[in-house]
Amino acid sequence: MDQRVSLITLGVADVARARAFYEALGWHLDGGVDDETDHVAFFQVNGFILALWGRAKLAEDSGVEDSGGWGGVTLAYNVRSPAEVDAVIEESRAAGATIAREGAETFWGGYSGAFVDPDGHPWEVAHNPGWVVHGDGRTTLT
Amino acid sequence: MDQRVSLITLGVADVARARAFYEALGWHLDGGVDDETDHVAFFQVNGFILALWGRAKLAEDSGVEDSGGWGGVTLAYNVRSPAEVDAVIEESRAAGATIAREGAETFWGGYSGAFVDPDGHPWEVAHNPGWVVHGDGRTTLT
Repeated sequence: MDQRVSLITLGVADVARARAFYEALGWHLDGGVDDETDHVAFFQVNGFILALWGRAKLAEDSGVEDSGGWGGVTLAYNVRSPAEVDAVIEESRAAGATIAREGAETFWGGYSGAFVDPDGHPWEVAHNPGWVVHGDGRTTLT
Repeated sequence: MDQRVSLITLGVADVARARAFYEALGWHLDGGVDDETDHVAFFQVNGFILALWGRAKLAEDSGVEDSGGWGGVTLAYNVRSPAEVDAVIEESRAAGATIAREGAETFWGGYSGAFVDPDGHPWEVAHNPGWVVHGDGRTTLT
């Protein structure tokens, strides 16, 4: 198994509502299905795809029981400065996110805040001075 | 907010055990901390980073309550043929995964199986003939 990930699917209560939240953050839809057969939204991100799909369908497809709530996965969006962390937290607030943490210095020597999307999926927004955020959207450890 | 993701963190019970599972799948560690200050493992993947960190710490850091179990996020690993799906499912079984679904044709015209890692995080292993898995590990919608 190569060291890569092709797709992250976030289970949501209503694909149209979830899609509208990410569009309000500035994202644009790249594909999906929205008809009588299914509702799924695909966003092409840096080297992989982020999907929004009905959470009950995702649980069944994944062969897992849905305990409700958070399940041990957090996404992060890294930026190039502490000021940019604060700006993205403000954008997420305006888009309807719940702010879990305002931007602040972290124990690991960076600066971060966190928001939670309308379906309970948390995102850390971080400036890590040791990592590199490239112009094409990739983040690398060095 | 640009359309990108920098980091996916999987909350785990024991970072060393979780790391060993991904290493058994063929991955190699690219960074992290493993001393008295913290335990975190970083894998550089295609354009972003996958981290393994203590689940209780991740919940606190993310500002969420941990309900236990699955929380609406599934990763996927896309390959270039149905036979490769079956091969990766076998690799995951050998590495100690629980097989949630053996490889089979899907309702969306592809072929996929699914495994669950030792901390309950599911991965779909999929051949989607409409998507492109590039030589450098990126997956794109067209």
